[in-house]
Amino acid sequence: MSEMSLELRVLGTAAGGGFPQWNCGCSNCARARLGELPARLQDSVAVTANASDWFLLNASPDVTRQVEATRPLWPRVRRGSPIRGFVLTNGDIDHVLGLLLLRENHPLAVYCTAEVRAGLLENPMLRTLMRFEGQLVWRSLPIGDEIELLGPADERSGIRARAFAAPGKPPLHFPGAAWAPGDNVGIELASEQGGRLVYASGTAAVGPIVGDLERASVLLLDGTFWSETELIERELGARSAREMAHVPISGRDGSLARCEGLPAGRKLFTHINNTNPILDPRSPERAELVTRGWDVAEDGMRLLI
Amino acid sequence: MSEMSLELRVLGTAAGGGFPQWNCGCSNCARARLGELPARLQDSVAVTANASDWFLLNASPDVTRQVEATRPLWPRVRRGSPIRGFVLTNGDIDHVLGLLLLRENHPLAVYCTAEVRAGLLENPMLRTLMRFEGQLVWRSLPIGDEIELLGPADERSGIRARAFAAPGKPPLHFPGAAWAPGDNVGIELASEQGGRLVYASGTAAVGPIVGDLERASVLLLDGTFWSETELIERELGARSAREMAHVPISGRDGSLARCEGLPAGRKLFTHINNTNPILDPRSPERAELVTRGWDVAEDGMRLLI
Repeated sequence: MSEMSLELRVLGTAAGGGFPQWNCGCSNCARARLGELPARLQDSVAVTANASDWFLLNASPDVTRQVEATRPLWPRVRRGSPIRGFVLTNGDIDHVLGLLLLRENHPLAVYCTAEVRAGLLENPMLRTLMRFEGQLVWRSLPIGDEIELLGPADERSGIRARAFAAPGKPPLHFPGAAWAPGDNVGIELASEQGGRLVYASGTAAVGPIVGDLERASVLLLDGTFWSETELIERELGARSAREMAHVPISGRDGSLARCEGLPAGRKLFTHINNTNPILDPRSPERAELVTRGWDVAEDGMRLLI
Repeated sequence: MSEMSLELRVLGTAAGGGFPQWNCGCSNCARARLGELPARLQDSVAVTANASDWFLLNASPDVTRQVEATRPLWPRVRRGSPIRGFVLTNGDIDHVLGLLLLRENHPLAVYCTAEVRAGLLENPMLRTLMRFEGQLVWRSLPIGDEIELLGPADERSGIRARAFAAPGKPPLHFPGAAWAPGDNVGIELASEQGGRLVYASGTAAVGPIVGDLERASVLLLDGTFWSETELIERELGARSAREMAHVPISGRDGSLARCEGLPAGRKLFTHINNTNPILDPRSPERAELVTRGWDVAEDGMRLLI
């Protein structure tokens, strides 16, 4: 018996803008600058099935910092990287910009839906990633079917992934405003031992994906906002959480309520906005989610499934 | 007498890819990962004439880290930033990508040439910086004429800047391959006290800009490569320094030789590639440039002119 488990490294747990956010002086950000709360990079997860070849869920603008902070992602030769490719959950700048930082002649496989790929290919900057045949290898990410992730030269990774549509919306920089199921997905990663990570770092609602979340042994879920009106209350924005395509954690239709009874042994919030009170480990909001069986994902966390 | 001086903060001194570079295991990068050589962010400089309103030369992919590492750039209100805008020296991804990281509803003035602006506007991601009137205020950067940098609402900064054409080439992601004088510029910043910073972090030759460099009291010059064949010798690339539009430091036509006798009181190399031996303070190459009156710019350096 040598059943393979999956090793996961949480590379970042912050929503767009990171934590602290460059132009925010809210109490959370101010405390992060003073070192009273841990800073967080933008959400991403690395996964390997063989302790050698890694895929990353999303390419955050912080990807080069994330590599340097994660020893298994360091080069093991004079020029090269253990990173074989990416799985993109949508076309948000915060989930794709990192690709443009990895353009030093290293082949990468990129799994995404047709919608995300079409949107990205509108960007002329991507030409710098297509300087030679096989530099960026686009692979389709089907919705609903489990596939094995393959490296840019079709190398097997042993990582099996399944995408599922999650309520969202296309980013502003994509053509067309109508929502299509491939605009935003969650990812399930399965190990041969039967463990399953479900990663849904952005979803506008829990209801439509609850069947997917039920399959998780480890769940990483959108924890952008604590409440529906978080930005409005703080006078930092005009839109509600759901208008920004993020289900809030609290409230009758929030993720805590709607995820009640999920069988996952570990339930973690990620993609946390700088305004979210759960960033403070001593906040009543953090206490409430812990009481209800959840925790907050931390940068650098190692998970085995 | 209250003549204004300019305060400069060196925000980064590395060439594209930063130092260490994510997929490089060369001895410099390996030593940086071990903490034996200081890590460096990508090249950028912040400038203020009033200790309050700042402009940045180039928007590096590291800009949010650079803000966090530089206390005067922290927000002083609940939402806001002392950063009023940017001056772009070309359209390289390494000099513009940071704009996409600063899209949280903060107005910014962007000074660049018509060539750079046209290239950037081809990028649909920039739409996220044009969500409201006045979010991104494009300002022309004339070649040869001194202008005062104005904030996004025309606020005076007291910073006077003059761009000069520097030999270079348009980035791969821009339309058309022919070189135009506005594709790549150096920047001169003048204080009322008569001091002048000349910033030319990318130039393919010194000869055509030597008249501009002669005006500098403080000079920050392209130090990408020590030698013309640095990448080829190390088997890390096929192109020479000049083919990549960077004058090497050494050699008969290198910047050390061609800058002999420049009157600047302080001459510093920046935009240093991870392969460059001058990254090691104890290298013979570093000793040679120090002997010849130069030094290496360091992240975090404060300069007054």
